[in-house]
Amino acid sequence: MLIDRDNFHLFQPLLYQVATAALSPSDIAEPIRRMLRGQENCEVVLGEVTAIDTQKRQIGMGAETVTYDILVLAAGATRSYLGHDEWEQFAPSLKTLEDALAIRTRLLLCFERAETSRNPQEQARLMTVVVIGGGPSGVELAGSIAELVRHTLAKDFRRISPAATRIILLEAGSRILAEFPEALSRYAAQRLAGLGVEVRENCAVKAITAAAVQADGAEIPAGLMVWAAGVKASPLAQMLGVKTDKHGRIAAGSDLAVAGLSGVYALGDLACVEDTMGKPLPGLAQVAKQQGTYLGRSLAAKIETGATPMPFAFHDRGNVAIVGRHSAVVDFGTIQLRGFAAWLLWAVVHIWLLAGLQHRVLVAIQWAWRYVTYDRGARQIMPMPGADGSARP
Amino acid sequence: MLIDRDNFHLFQPLLYQVATAALSPSDIAEPIRRMLRGQENCEVVLGEVTAIDTQKRQIGMGAETVTYDILVLAAGATRSYLGHDEWEQFAPSLKTLEDALAIRTRLLLCFERAETSRNPQEQARLMTVVVIGGGPSGVELAGSIAELVRHTLAKDFRRISPAATRIILLEAGSRILAEFPEALSRYAAQRLAGLGVEVRENCAVKAITAAAVQADGAEIPAGLMVWAAGVKASPLAQMLGVKTDKHGRIAAGSDLAVAGLSGVYALGDLACVEDTMGKPLPGLAQVAKQQGTYLGRSLAAKIETGATPMPFAFHDRGNVAIVGRHSAVVDFGTIQLRGFAAWLLWAVVHIWLLAGLQHRVLVAIQWAWRYVTYDRGARQIMPMPGADGSARP
Repeated sequence: MLIDRDNFHLFQPLLYQVATAALSPSDIAEPIRRMLRGQENCEVVLGEVTAIDTQKRQIGMGAETVTYDILVLAAGATRSYLGHDEWEQFAPSLKTLEDALAIRTRLLLCFERAETSRNPQEQARLMTVVVIGGGPSGVELAGSIAELVRHTLAKDFRRISPAATRIILLEAGSRILAEFPEALSRYAAQRLAGLGVEVRENCAVKAITAAAVQADGAEIPAGLMVWAAGVKASPLAQMLGVKTDKHGRIAAGSDLAVAGLSGVYALGDLACVEDTMGKPLPGLAQVAKQQGTYLGRSLAAKIETGATPMPFAFHDRGNVAIVGRHSAVVDFGTIQLRGFAAWLLWAVVHIWLLAGLQHRVLVAIQWAWRYVTYDRGARQIMPMPGADGSARP
Repeated sequence: MLIDRDNFHLFQPLLYQVATAALSPSDIAEPIRRMLRGQENCEVVLGEVTAIDTQKRQIGMGAETVTYDILVLAAGATRSYLGHDEWEQFAPSLKTLEDALAIRTRLLLCFERAETSRNPQEQARLMTVVVIGGGPSGVELAGSIAELVRHTLAKDFRRISPAATRIILLEAGSRILAEFPEALSRYAAQRLAGLGVEVRENCAVKAITAAAVQADGAEIPAGLMVWAAGVKASPLAQMLGVKTDKHGRIAAGSDLAVAGLSGVYALGDLACVEDTMGKPLPGLAQVAKQQGTYLGRSLAAKIETGATPMPFAFHDRGNVAIVGRHSAVVDFGTIQLRGFAAWLLWAVVHIWLLAGLQHRVLVAIQWAWRYVTYDRGARQIMPMPGADGSARP
């Protein structure tokens, strides 16, 4: 039985493209039932887990209870405002489809409101975007917003010039893309500057209010603020009742079993698994995907033959971040790529990774179209729960 | 200046495909700014008109005011519950993108809830869909839901069989598709029956509650009820202060001018324009589109040369309704088509009518894909304002 509170599997690496009107939700969200259609011994349940009892081997979903023999927790990560949850209402994160649509709505409304505003100061505020956090998500989002305003929207307004939008990327650490080699961080910062993004490193956020970010001793009035600075494990991890690390993750062994609990496994972003050198594996999609394949096979083998599984070994497929329209940085450890070749590699790999042939074809066509025309079609402003009240002005 | 409360132009004839998870909102909603990008003397304003003062020639949008020389009202039609507005909360209409997404969410949640329900009576209720109104919208929606449950969802559940879903189409009049020749109505009713839709004619709705429709002296418990029975002109028509007909429409002359008001024109579904025989033109997209083209040209000619325009003449392009996967009825007046040829004609014409080449290509591919595989990708359940509270169970 697979329990999920959504009825779709979300391909998170492309969420920023939904937030910037380049793709539609259905392009990156595959119905779970369709993915498991052929797996006749697997039941899919739409529901939210509210309690776990590892003694009775039971899971609670509201009033309902499910009994298990083996429990695998793979609920991923969620936003973390580093102790400032009150910032969330002003600066949404980009972790779910709703987040992406809320950010898209706020972004597009900024330009609509600036177009009709008669107050130059208010116009300047509305046309300032602050992205907080210089990891891959923040870099990709800032680059994609820069292209949206400088190309797609450039000729669509009569009173304002969207191309003049200020886009500021704030990074508290000494450089963006800190997990990449320094040369690639430098390259990405230069590319972003070329797209018109102001990259500010060593710049920690002090406060976020409804209309401004305070950082570096100054106040930056902004129309849209996005939080891309922190993640923590899903709250589901807390329900196990075992100790978690500072990111809220459950420690799991090299067989992904949770120590001290019988028949409980954890993987992906809510688990902390160490590599053979004792270093925790990074919170990447490729780690989670390899762990899922590994655990499926090792549990099947254990049930069928009673075999003790080989320990999980992570195979690094390379780390990538997109910097605008046809540029990316890729780190394969020994080899590093950047620029157009890196971007092309990223595009091919990501289309391949999308679940479902139809999505692959549709996304490939939309990217090719966008590449040639700079156009983006998913620009509908609709009322969203979570967006500031009503989407309409 | 073009004022709209949405930032997109909605292609309403395909709304039912969004409601049944076949297309995404962005496939049928083109950003207005993009459509008018090349029209540099046209300003686009996102806003809702709240007052019209034809004496001062002013339009109010909340606190803002715009002065006009010429005013064209083309705000279309909205739902009408025929005096029973309290039914709306239980049986949504299909007039806007939000409506379509709310219906999609309710429909998909019915199956999710039926799958986990242990109460056979409740399961039967959840797996009953009632569509109220047998015009083209109701017929198209019922046919598309039938295909969704019998093909797309058929193998996706383990405990319930979506193919067993009851779909009931209620028509108060003596036959569905009343505006078509009787032979086509009969054909459509037979095709729907073949798809598993129960067509009930001469069956007026007496009441709608949270979980049932009362009609024909009986109560039909249902998981989803959709209202496709009535439309009326946009409330904007009332703001002019002139007399409107029983559908709330403004009478406009053969030059589309509103009698008694200087510089005010009305067209499309909120206007009542008579043909040369004195019969009101039907509320069809093709009427509105021809009127728009006519008025644009005649106003330009009047301004440039002062010429009095020729009266508007409607050219009937034929009336069409889709009945399931590869069948349609088309009425050209003298010629009538039905079956596969009619469907193919419909598909080609509707792809052509979609605004924007990208939409044409994307929709064509999705239809071809769906035709071969029966698959539908836009099945994401997301919280919607207006859907019953939370989308999650």
